Amino acid sequence: MPDYKAPLRDVRFLIDEVFDFAGGYQALGATDASPDMVSAILEEGAKFCEQVLAPLNRSGDEEGCHFDNGVVTTPKGFKEAYAQYVEGGWNGVSADPEYGGQGLPPSLGLLVSEMIGASNCSWGMYPGLTRGAMAAIHAHGTAEQKNAYLPRMTAGTWTGTMCLTEPHCGTDLGIIKTRAVPNADGSYAISGTKIFISAGEHDMSENIIHLVLAKLPDAPAGTKGISLFIVPKFTLDAAGEAGARNAVSCGSIEHKMGIKASATCVMNFDGATGYLIGEANKGLACMFTMMNHARLGTGMQGLCLGETSYQGAVKYARDRLQMRALTGPKAPDKPADPIIVHPDVRRMLLTMKAFNEGNRALAYFTAQLLDVEHLAESAEEREQAANLLAFLTPICKAFMTETGLEATNLGMQVFGGHGFIREWGMEQLVRDCRIAPIYEGTNGIQALDLLGRKVLGSQGKLLMGFTKLVHKLCQEHAEHPQLKAQVAQLAALNKQWGELTQKVGMAAMKNPDEVGAAAVDYLMFSGYITLGYFWLRMALVAQQKLEAGNGEADFYQAKLATADFYFARLLPRAAAHKAAVEAGGESLMRLSAEQFAL
Amino acid sequence: MPDYKAPLRDVRFLIDEVFDFAGGYQALGATDASPDMVSAILEEGAKFCEQVLAPLNRSGDEEGCHFDNGVVTTPKGFKEAYAQYVEGGWNGVSADPEYGGQGLPPSLGLLVSEMIGASNCSWGMYPGLTRGAMAAIHAHGTAEQKNAYLPRMTAGTWTGTMCLTEPHCGTDLGIIKTRAVPNADGSYAISGTKIFISAGEHDMSENIIHLVLAKLPDAPAGTKGISLFIVPKFTLDAAGEAGARNAVSCGSIEHKMGIKASATCVMNFDGATGYLIGEANKGLACMFTMMNHARLGTGMQGLCLGETSYQGAVKYARDRLQMRALTGPKAPDKPADPIIVHPDVRRMLLTMKAFNEGNRALAYFTAQLLDVEHLAESAEEREQAANLLAFLTPICKAFMTETGLEATNLGMQVFGGHGFIREWGMEQLVRDCRIAPIYEGTNGIQALDLLGRKVLGSQGKLLMGFTKLVHKLCQEHAEHPQLKAQVAQLAALNKQWGELTQKVGMAAMKNPDEVGAAAVDYLMFSGYITLGYFWLRMALVAQQKLEAGNGEADFYQAKLATADFYFARLLPRAAAHKAAVEAGGESLMRLSAEQFAL
Repeated sequence: MPDYKAPLRDVRFLIDEVFDFAGGYQALGATDASPDMVSAILEEGAKFCEQVLAPLNRSGDEEGCHFDNGVVTTPKGFKEAYAQYVEGGWNGVSADPEYGGQGLPPSLGLLVSEMIGASNCSWGMYPGLTRGAMAAIHAHGTAEQKNAYLPRMTAGTWTGTMCLTEPHCGTDLGIIKTRAVPNADGSYAISGTKIFISAGEHDMSENIIHLVLAKLPDAPAGTKGISLFIVPKFTLDAAGEAGARNAVSCGSIEHKMGIKASATCVMNFDGATGYLIGEANKGLACMFTMMNHARLGTGMQGLCLGETSYQGAVKYARDRLQMRALTGPKAPDKPADPIIVHPDVRRMLLTMKAFNEGNRALAYFTAQLLDVEHLAESAEEREQAANLLAFLTPICKAFMTETGLEATNLGMQVFGGHGFIREWGMEQLVRDCRIAPIYEGTNGIQALDLLGRKVLGSQGKLLMGFTKLVHKLCQEHAEHPQLKAQVAQLAALNKQWGELTQKVGMAAMKNPDEVGAAAVDYLMFSGYITLGYFWLRMALVAQQKLEAGNGEADFYQAKLATADFYFARLLPRAAAHKAAVEAGGESLMRLSAEQFAL
Repeated sequence: MPDYKAPLRDVRFLIDEVFDFAGGYQALGATDASPDMVSAILEEGAKFCEQVLAPLNRSGDEEGCHFDNGVVTTPKGFKEAYAQYVEGGWNGVSADPEYGGQGLPPSLGLLVSEMIGASNCSWGMYPGLTRGAMAAIHAHGTAEQKNAYLPRMTAGTWTGTMCLTEPHCGTDLGIIKTRAVPNADGSYAISGTKIFISAGEHDMSENIIHLVLAKLPDAPAGTKGISLFIVPKFTLDAAGEAGARNAVSCGSIEHKMGIKASATCVMNFDGATGYLIGEANKGLACMFTMMNHARLGTGMQGLCLGETSYQGAVKYARDRLQMRALTGPKAPDKPADPIIVHPDVRRMLLTMKAFNEGNRALAYFTAQLLDVEHLAESAEEREQAANLLAFLTPICKAFMTETGLEATNLGMQVFGGHGFIREWGMEQLVRDCRIAPIYEGTNGIQALDLLGRKVLGSQGKLLMGFTKLVHKLCQEHAEHPQLKAQVAQLAALNKQWGELTQKVGMAAMKNPDEVGAAAVDYLMFSGYITLGYFWLRMALVAQQKLEAGNGEADFYQAKLATADFYFARLLPRAAAHKAAVEAGGESLMRLSAEQFAL
């Protein structure tokens, strides 16, 4: 397994030099997030992830979770690591102090979750789901509900889940069958089967708080008839402690390609006691509070696994001796040169590096928007941030997972045959990453969300909220002595973005299938430009720092070379996605279902 | 697991309607390959693969191979299936009749191996390696060696391996450490450790004939000092039967991401008796006989697994009900529409279909070249075929495995969350396919072979051997009423192919690293155009048949729609690869090894 080291230098580059997190915290009045606090969280978080979580990553994959008659046991060491996490107060970093959280800005929570996801993706699922459930209860629960559940969930002694999917539906939640029948006491009897429930049952917490989508008896058909319920594994006794066992049980766990140490459960609700959260029939809106959280988290999975894979691949490429450089021996005293001398190995490493660092910038920018959305005093600022977040969320989820998966595949490829062997740990990263383009809304669904709901649904307004940032940056630096070529390349693509959107919008008015036909390529096109924007921002800072001569020339030169690589070798992929969008949907829709099988 | 059905309609389209295999056989005097014989082989082969091999695919993956103190046991049913294969004479379909083969043209052997690889990739490794070893012995062995080994290997009662890789070297065979010390009797004592030896040890055959690369005591350094040896597991007794156990043993088997039912062995040679095959120090050339065979076979793996994944995905997409079509309900009597109505699901299915059918055409064209190379009377024809084969082999290996891997990933994506669950069998196809871009020379090495050795090494001659075919086809059909747009698109790319090659060639003269920097993108660019050529050929035939009105309009329309899709939505990817090639290597080479790790 690659030894994960939290990439703190790159983290600091972004939070200090590119995005000025400290300035942001000050502006938002988040005075607790002092520079010392940020450093302490990063350093202690890194230590916990590197020393406690990372060593359990491969053993967790090999052992997997155990299921025995409804009881789920996590792999050796998981429970103890979780106890340390709870003990350290990590779950409450950015949670509401009213319920025991540290009240730090969401962006700091994201920095911690990056290190967790990179060191042990499966383990990170348990607290990750909890934080999503906390967000939904915090946003939609009554004061009583918040007081009942949030303190324990913030501490981490209780965990949470989101129960959406059923055997016959995942994407199409309008057709769920789980029923909620009102009880005399105001609670509901929940009955139905949910599948693919991450952390649905396990041995790490004292109670599990399920958030369950179900339909009331008189509910309208479709998504307008879905309600959200809190269904605790143990209902609370008079003292608010975990009391009697509720009628919810784990029927089995799935055998999966990856994230094997994350328990993916079939959950059976047999008249379990549940409590309505939010308004009746408005459950989907509540669920989206969790889903948006989860979508950013899933996007992070691409970054996290890409980063760990990169670290392993660079180390291997520097150690492994194979062939001589085409330009002559570079390590003449050794039987062969380290493979990092070979251009194609560098191409693979730089592709990983460019995606990872670009995705990290995108993620941190998004994290700052979360801060503003949660903490800004001005409603206008909050709305602006929320709009940008709404626009960037599907890009984060889909583009970061697609490119993260590419990165993990490249990391494995750098290892040659050894990459395919479990012992080295590189193939696990591919398997763990492979779910990310699927869950929390497949990337196809993200693409429809971006193009249909966000971009066309806002008549282009949400798109323009971002393209104007790109435009402004390009305009400011159009004459930049070192970077003007990249600025021009980005500006041209940014212009195309608007034109392409108009073209698709026109086609969609005539035929709605054109949206679906264009969506994934439109999202990838958008993702490449989005990362181009962040690479330009990073390059501008690096160039400035280099000229200022602050003594870390190697770091800034590496940043500039990686930016160059991105613009020269990855950003041109946008053109192929554009061409695919422009080709329209005709060639997709011509075949009958039967003809596909001929 | 998807139920594999041999795609015989598409096979017949290619062999009868596009490539005229029957005419080819006749021209080559391969009269045994009569239409009846071809049909019998296809139908019986399909039956064996669908009914015997396919049912063992998932169980083989779950069970894997067992290792116990040097003894390797294959999964339940593998041995019995292999006995049936031997019984049916399948191993000898295209083998030399002098040694018990049926003497049918190589292309027929390839048709059978496609069905084997698609129904059970792991199982297919055992006979696949044997046929590679047979080819090397046939080409380079003495009459005595051929008589000693080929009859049993042709029958399949003995199997073969190729032992190249060592712990410290895979790509760089010049630095192998395995030694061959001459014995008094003319044999050699072979000592060393080989890793990643597929079918190195197992329970399916009575003897295993290893072909082992080793160095003689006085061998020159590097690849010019490598010799090839035959090292049987059991040395032959006076009667030519498997006799005493040789000093070669399996030290362990690898735990891998996929092809788990294929035993990947560490093989220890402890002074094992070996016999030189071919000339001393010319072992690498002999090995290439096997490797070229294996490279085509590995390319086929991409096609095979892509096909099986496609079959599973189409079935699922027609069954699974989820959401309504954007243009209104298509199955109003059901709770939702089958997902095959959604444009993005169609995009995924069509991408798979276009790659599979295009790759199949490429493979069969190559198979015909194998026929000519082996059977043509005229040396000129043989040489021409050999040149085209040399050019196409790295494209087959790398492009077919990259796109095959993409296809299996898309097939899994069509299943949504269920794709990640082992039970459905779709994720196994991804794992089984993931080794294909790595082994038998990584795709990076294939790309160097194509651009450096084949294209630039022949001063463009080998490239022109193919581009002139493309040019001729485009010229002939420049005014085609339905297809002229596609013809023009292909012709323009074909022109760019030559220009791009010149550009890279010029850059490489100044700096050899430019070859490595361009190679993979050059190969992918080449692959997209190559498949464009075959899609145009298929479209031309389909259009003609459709106009002739032979009553299979659905099939030909589907073919034309898939061609359209390829030209509209996949072929444009070539431009992004071209841009990456044109960007050159500067941004790759700028970083120091240390800077990669900052």
